[in-house]
Amino acid sequence: MPSLILNRQLTVEWGQCDPTGTVFNSRFFELFDANTWLLFQSALTVKPQDLAETFGILGIPIVDARAEFVKPIRFGDDIEITSRVREFRGSSFDVEHRISVGGELAVDAGETRVWTEIDKNNPQKIRAIAIPSDVIARFG
Amino acid sequence: MPSLILNRQLTVEWGQCDPTGTVFNSRFFELFDANTWLLFQSALTVKPQDLAETFGILGIPIVDARAEFVKPIRFGDDIEITSRVREFRGSSFDVEHRISVGGELAVDAGETRVWTEIDKNNPQKIRAIAIPSDVIARFG
Amino acid sequence: MPSLILNRQLTVEWGQCDPTGTVFNSRFFELFDANTWLLFQSALTVKPQDLAETFGILGIPIVDARAEFVKPIRFGDDIEITSRVREFRGSSFDVEHRISVGGELAVDAGETRVWTEIDKNNPQKIRAIAIPSDVIARFG
Amino acid sequence: MPSLILNRQLTVEWGQCDPTGTVFNSRFFELFDANTWLLFQSALTVKPQDLAETFGILGIPIVDARAEFVKPIRFGDDIEITSRVREFRGSSFDVEHRISVGGELAVDAGETRVWTEIDKNNPQKIRAIAIPSDVIARFG
Repeated sequence: MPSLILNRQLTVEWGQCDPTGTVFNSRFFELFDANTWLLFQSALTVKPQDLAETFGILGIPIVDARAEFVKPIRFGDDIEITSRVREFRGSSFDVEHRISVGGELAVDAGETRVWTEIDKNNPQKIRAIAIPSDVIARFG
Repeated sequence: MPSLILNRQLTVEWGQCDPTGTVFNSRFFELFDANTWLLFQSALTVKPQDLAETFGILGIPIVDARAEFVKPIRFGDDIEITSRVREFRGSSFDVEHRISVGGELAVDAGETRVWTEIDKNNPQKIRAIAIPSDVIARFG
Repeated sequence: MPSLILNRQLTVEWGQCDPTGTVFNSRFFELFDANTWLLFQSALTVKPQDLAETFGILGIPIVDARAEFVKPIRFGDDIEITSRVREFRGSSFDVEHRISVGGELAVDAGETRVWTEIDKNNPQKIRAIAIPSDVIARFG
Repeated sequence: MPSLILNRQLTVEWGQCDPTGTVFNSRFFELFDANTWLLFQSALTVKPQDLAETFGILGIPIVDARAEFVKPIRFGDDIEITSRVREFRGSSFDVEHRISVGGELAVDAGETRVWTEIDKNNPQKIRAIAIPSDVIARFG
């Protein structure tokens, strides 16, 4: 597994919580998406908005997302989101995201993304292409 | 004031509410945005995703938004959102949005948008252009 | 598998889409949450805001969510979200959510929730309890 | 005008942007809400989740919000949100929020909130009460 880890500390906002006073589930997927962009920025030293152009790709669309909600997280809780690539395959990769509160695991999540370009024979389509080995190498 | 009115009935969702059990303020602006698109669809009989191409514009970006929250709206409340253009000016227009619950006004809101195109002399810029009179006429 | 199915037709809103013009992944989980509430309303003929009190529970918190994004869904697309309980176990249950566009599967998702009450011995805690058989029966 | 200012630096996330690649308008109101909580935390040295209990209030619900969108803000832009109380009145107060990008004003916004408690004669109702002078004093 690549060694590069992206840690981000946040405090849970009022607007992220539902009537139980805990984070509404869709909000976690916003946090994970942002962490993946930051993880790539950290690895490749390229700003998120320049990622596509720098590597000649369309982007890294998500094709699978999953989360296990182990403990509720409340308004005002200080959380840490730890993200890393779990595995690179040919043209896709898995990212894991773990949120802890006070050192205890609260959400155990992950996603799969694909390194994609616009199909040169059909600009209406996108297609998966091989992730460059030097990109993978940057994740340690 | 143009006569065309767009009414939409909705039931407040769990994920739209904050820890008080009432709608979080930013969620209202999502509802208003959707209503403006629907109002234009109703007036111009063009699907939202085809609006820009049909009229040769970039879009109708919002330049001002405002809302008065008269009464809290709760999870499960049946609401009605009533939207209409209040005034067309040269290249901008005001839309008013009112949300009622059980016939009582709960949110009194409005926004200003601009009919814009990409500046032909500078594709990095957008500029306001005159709203066509036949567009205005379609709002009654 | 219980036979009750909840279908909901929606048109994708501008504010649900990201810079690619397709639905941002977290938005799907908002749609699924709303569908689960509607599915329970349909089965139990109780309004979502009355569910907890009617059944003497705290709620049905989500403990696991997952989604496979098969095809991108674009701004203005007419979608159908089909939801059903896949399985009831002692105190938990799985709900599946499928989104189709033009009859083709676009998102294949699911979640696990738990029938919970406040722990009478410790009001700070919640605990899973058995789902009443007459509740299960209502799902067909 | 009270002198206390709350500055927050952020980088615009992918999920906050719409198909134009700029921040969707409702997202700004999420940012403002969070800034108001942080401003009160800074002034009163009390965590947001402890504000109500510490001061024996129900909360500080928003009754009016407004924003002028001066310049579009794009994915990846580094922004600064500057918030301060513009005026305290008897039981209500105005907060102004300004977002700048590269030192230029991009959003000029504000909101009105009310210091409220639960009506002791009618727990179903909330009512505005006088903001304590020592609370006001903490804002400089």
